[in-house]
Amino acid sequence: MLHTKGYAAMSAGAALEPFSFNRRAVGPHDVLIQIQYCGICHSDIHQARDEWGGSFFPMVPGHEIVGTAIQIGGEVKKFKQGDRVGVGCFVDSCRRCGACQVGLEQYCEAGMILTYNGLDKQGAPTYGGYSKQIVVDENYLLRVPSSLSLEGTAPLLCAGITTYSPLKHWGVGKGHRLGVVGLGGLGHMAVKIGWALGAEVTVFSRSERKRQDAYRLGAVDFVSTEKDGALSEQSGKFDFVIDTVSASHDYNAYLDLLTRDGTMILVGAPSEPLPVAAFHLVLKRRRMVGSLIGGISETQEMLEFCAKHQIPSDVEVIPFQQVNEAYERILKGDVRFRFVIDVESLG
Amino acid sequence: MLHTKGYAAMSAGAALEPFSFNRRAVGPHDVLIQIQYCGICHSDIHQARDEWGGSFFPMVPGHEIVGTAIQIGGEVKKFKQGDRVGVGCFVDSCRRCGACQVGLEQYCEAGMILTYNGLDKQGAPTYGGYSKQIVVDENYLLRVPSSLSLEGTAPLLCAGITTYSPLKHWGVGKGHRLGVVGLGGLGHMAVKIGWALGAEVTVFSRSERKRQDAYRLGAVDFVSTEKDGALSEQSGKFDFVIDTVSASHDYNAYLDLLTRDGTMILVGAPSEPLPVAAFHLVLKRRRMVGSLIGGISETQEMLEFCAKHQIPSDVEVIPFQQVNEAYERILKGDVRFRFVIDVESLG
Repeated sequence: MLHTKGYAAMSAGAALEPFSFNRRAVGPHDVLIQIQYCGICHSDIHQARDEWGGSFFPMVPGHEIVGTAIQIGGEVKKFKQGDRVGVGCFVDSCRRCGACQVGLEQYCEAGMILTYNGLDKQGAPTYGGYSKQIVVDENYLLRVPSSLSLEGTAPLLCAGITTYSPLKHWGVGKGHRLGVVGLGGLGHMAVKIGWALGAEVTVFSRSERKRQDAYRLGAVDFVSTEKDGALSEQSGKFDFVIDTVSASHDYNAYLDLLTRDGTMILVGAPSEPLPVAAFHLVLKRRRMVGSLIGGISETQEMLEFCAKHQIPSDVEVIPFQQVNEAYERILKGDVRFRFVIDVESLG
Repeated sequence: MLHTKGYAAMSAGAALEPFSFNRRAVGPHDVLIQIQYCGICHSDIHQARDEWGGSFFPMVPGHEIVGTAIQIGGEVKKFKQGDRVGVGCFVDSCRRCGACQVGLEQYCEAGMILTYNGLDKQGAPTYGGYSKQIVVDENYLLRVPSSLSLEGTAPLLCAGITTYSPLKHWGVGKGHRLGVVGLGGLGHMAVKIGWALGAEVTVFSRSERKRQDAYRLGAVDFVSTEKDGALSEQSGKFDFVIDTVSASHDYNAYLDLLTRDGTMILVGAPSEPLPVAAFHLVLKRRRMVGSLIGGISETQEMLEFCAKHQIPSDVEVIPFQQVNEAYERILKGDVRFRFVIDVESLG
């Protein structure tokens, strides 16, 4: 066992506080990582407050992890000491089902093992990246390209892959008009990746004050959704809409933005079912589809893509001591566009 | 002008009654059709009762029309006198937009001209197939294969193409498990066409008494949806689900039937928006898509396909005098599986 420390929520909704715990010993296929940065995903808040149900406590959140490999198991082949590495939303899966066999571990039929708030194969709770060290099997580890900063890479491991995977899967590219709904952690990566794929990107956001950010990130247009009639003016113009919003909102107004055969991609998951009018799908043969993060090999591909196009996440680096304040600011939409914890601040 | 007669609803919700009216004179590109049979689609009832709003009266319903070409315009090239012909849900479209150019007239950007309860290019109301004659431009006319009975063909022009088009578009075939939700006019054709495409078909229906029908039509399994837990037993088993139900029902229970990357096709259009839980789409990368009838060339292809596989619609032929009673029976689900009016009965 390896002793380490981090920050944890001791119970649902409690403020995060310093916490000491053990990691498993480094096995033959494992890599011990000295964590340098960990992004704060909105889902960290949902789970730390048990808003989706089923949370385990104490909980050490964090699934946007980057750091350095400092110890290598005897049979590890893909990594060596000193490598810059990353860990995303899951740290293992069954490795045998149809999904795992084709590199779609996120859809593992036995259920992927979440990086935190999950149970490992021995039935022990998993602890995430708000901590100094983590032990991960090499097959669930990513390589961070040398041309990307570590802190700008951390959010790619969730926000980046969550938007990259469906944009690739559905073939978004040159000649396509892409609407991005919501300009938060996911949305800002959808704009960057959509731009890098060659699509013409329009941002739909409630916050008029994000207009200049949208342009800077690569959007050609910005629609302030609080203006009456703003959405209906855009009716039928978009080949794709990627909806990153997790709060309740009107799906039908966004379905109506699509062309015939257009695709609306849901990556946010509102906690309540939302009404869908079949006519919006039927009358134009439109599609509404979901997508969940991405597999390990696709996540590696995404990292190389972001390196090639030099599109790290836009981050605000904070010390551990500000994590509770950061949670409150995220809930107010006051972050451009992802908080990343500097793990060294823990001392 | 050509004088003809038929049955009409004189006002919203009124019983249908004999009605005399005029058709346009046969133009150079027109064909005059002596109608022999016209199917009764559930949408006839919705529109005759103005349940979707915007209905015109008097209304002569009917968009599942078959008959014989009895007079041919001077420039008609595709048809000759005596041909067995059919007319479906629309009789014209703009012919210039992107959709029309690729044979998807049903998605015409200017709006297709409906066979009844529409307005033609001169702004006059269109009257449907519950009548003795109709005049239609040759480009919106179908050829009825000689090996299909006329009465069994009539419902193919709406129920047939509505289910054929998405099953073809989404590539349903051998090796696929297809769920058909609802065993009415649309559902029974979805079973036949799914079977003919090589899929393994399961019917989901409230009516246990339709089980033997389902097997006879080509299904390998039948799930009575009123049994507790019947749906959840089928979770994750289906590559495709085609949902033909227009009444309110639980989309999420059917989304849950799908495999990863599975597709739920909506061809029924409930009048109210229904709740969709994003998690059902996101966690398995599922798709929910809509589809609307089919274009003219695809409708012709469907007729040839149904002829080749000898899968006409199962019909109950009635005289005009029973049309109001037939409406009531349709509302009770008491028809196997489509009423077809014998137009000669009008005298």
